[in-house]
Amino acid sequence: MQDLTKSGKHTMKRSLAGLCFIFCFVLALAGVATAGEADPLPSWNEGSSKQAIFRFVEEVSAPRGPGFIPPAERIAVFDNDGTLWSEQPMYFQLAFALDRVKALAPLHPEWKQKQPFKAALAGDLKTVLDGGEHALLELVMATHAGTTTEEFAEAVKDWLESARHPKTGRPYTDMVYQPMLELLAYLRANGFETYIVSGGGIEFMRPWAERIYGIPPEQVVGSSIKTKYELRDGEPVLVRLPEINFIDDKAGKPVGINQHIGRRPIAAFGNSDGDLQMLQWTSAGDGARFALLIHHTDAEREWAYDRKSPIGRLDKVLDEAHVKGWTVVDMKKDWKVIYPFEQQ
Amino acid sequence: MQDLTKSGKHTMKRSLAGLCFIFCFVLALAGVATAGEADPLPSWNEGSSKQAIFRFVEEVSAPRGPGFIPPAERIAVFDNDGTLWSEQPMYFQLAFALDRVKALAPLHPEWKQKQPFKAALAGDLKTVLDGGEHALLELVMATHAGTTTEEFAEAVKDWLESARHPKTGRPYTDMVYQPMLELLAYLRANGFETYIVSGGGIEFMRPWAERIYGIPPEQVVGSSIKTKYELRDGEPVLVRLPEINFIDDKAGKPVGINQHIGRRPIAAFGNSDGDLQMLQWTSAGDGARFALLIHHTDAEREWAYDRKSPIGRLDKVLDEAHVKGWTVVDMKKDWKVIYPFEQQ
Repeated sequence: MQDLTKSGKHTMKRSLAGLCFIFCFVLALAGVATAGEADPLPSWNEGSSKQAIFRFVEEVSAPRGPGFIPPAERIAVFDNDGTLWSEQPMYFQLAFALDRVKALAPLHPEWKQKQPFKAALAGDLKTVLDGGEHALLELVMATHAGTTTEEFAEAVKDWLESARHPKTGRPYTDMVYQPMLELLAYLRANGFETYIVSGGGIEFMRPWAERIYGIPPEQVVGSSIKTKYELRDGEPVLVRLPEINFIDDKAGKPVGINQHIGRRPIAAFGNSDGDLQMLQWTSAGDGARFALLIHHTDAEREWAYDRKSPIGRLDKVLDEAHVKGWTVVDMKKDWKVIYPFEQQ
Repeated sequence: MQDLTKSGKHTMKRSLAGLCFIFCFVLALAGVATAGEADPLPSWNEGSSKQAIFRFVEEVSAPRGPGFIPPAERIAVFDNDGTLWSEQPMYFQLAFALDRVKALAPLHPEWKQKQPFKAALAGDLKTVLDGGEHALLELVMATHAGTTTEEFAEAVKDWLESARHPKTGRPYTDMVYQPMLELLAYLRANGFETYIVSGGGIEFMRPWAERIYGIPPEQVVGSSIKTKYELRDGEPVLVRLPEINFIDDKAGKPVGINQHIGRRPIAAFGNSDGDLQMLQWTSAGDGARFALLIHHTDAEREWAYDRKSPIGRLDKVLDEAHVKGWTVVDMKKDWKVIYPFEQQ
């Protein structure tokens, strides 16, 4: 009975707190504006992109406005590579795979003679890429499978601690876009749930997405390999198998969104043709919608690439963005700062 | 610039509201207990099951206690059939499939001569079930595929409005367990996220889980068929294909949990051997864990079945529950009320 009494007290505490929360909510809506108001997107230069973001968020958040959308339906989806962090000179996950080939090589003496492993060990990226999708798949299977899910998460975290980007000499997780970090926070502060929807590996992103982006594991959608439940000496584990489960890219993105989220997003953010269908799916819904495309135009501070780039190819989706009036971010012009470390 | 100013104001409002929320939180923790405290689980009789629930929730919520778990990690997973609503005399989704065979029959004259459709049209459940898994799969594919995701959600909602349970004459969504509704609300009030992890179809549950259980679409995990993204006259749709994507049952449940949630739950609730691996996976994690099994013991108010039941077989998992000390709910003894409508 003691437990019941305790729980009863907790319920009452919750009721009081509930009333208080309602009061706070009313206060927030009533809008007690004072001096010292801050720009939530300080790393964005003034211009049409920044204004379009504000206009959309205001529109769906205004409680009595015609475009109001309840917070539960304010789902925003973000591509990762090239949208939240850089993706040059190669997808960062490929850098992980290549480093992991080296780390695992002592267990696989046969790799010295076998492509694409031989090239990976020699640091010969060109030969690896010339092997096409098949070679990449072989590398991914050899480096991403065979462990338990917990061991793999540790391997990702260990790599991120020691690996450095070839151009900046920084940890890869330093190379996230400051303007997008601000945008994620701004959307969440306005009741949005922010999801990653990436062609990258779901289990490659989850170990660090919460720390770096504030996005918890359950809001990460990505490509995956199959896993298998096993008891090892009575302890349950999930073993990662060398078999593709789902490719969350191109037409797979709306499929992954539906599978994981079960609601159509109201805002989508991408940077390449791999995001076309996600942007279409999002913007074709009823009511206020927002679609934004990042154009990498800054060869000096980041990279400049678009229609013919082997990584982050931005071609069809750029045409469609122009036709449909989606917001196109000109990185060089629209972003005051690229990386957080520039501010330090 | 107007938009920027507006957004600045919103930021300030949020800061004030943020302070206020912190105050409320402190108030809630400080525990201002007053008269009129209510039992959060009034439909549970006093006893060891109810006390075990209270003890666990108190333990993980006590901010300075040794068992404290941060709210973000308070993931609770619930089986659906037999755990949140009834599953006799057949899974409710099978009743949907059989009714849908009848609804679609005019488009399929060949079904009159072809099993298992012929039996389904004649209401001959025995012959359908004698056909085994293969027959059920054929029924599911014929009745769950071929539409867009939006059309399918409408079909489910339409069916729930008109269909009635053969024993109670009630809508199927009336046959949810009042004690479990209270438990869901109690856990959420204590910072838990409550997920469904069911062998049933993810798209069969999502259209009503939020209204009935307060569980939003993104917190429903279930079995699924594949979908395909298409443009129809320029409008994007997701078409449901007659091909299994994932079976979220038995050893599939920890796999589905990892895929969707990416964290190991700290509490799991089930009622059959199909939940064994989910309960193992949950309870093997570090720190405070809770595993609960519902034993259907009430032939009068609900149904009584266990070790040899063709539906909701409770055998291996009952043995493991006894060995591992999991909480076993005796429905007849532990539940004061079964369905919400008994209280009306």
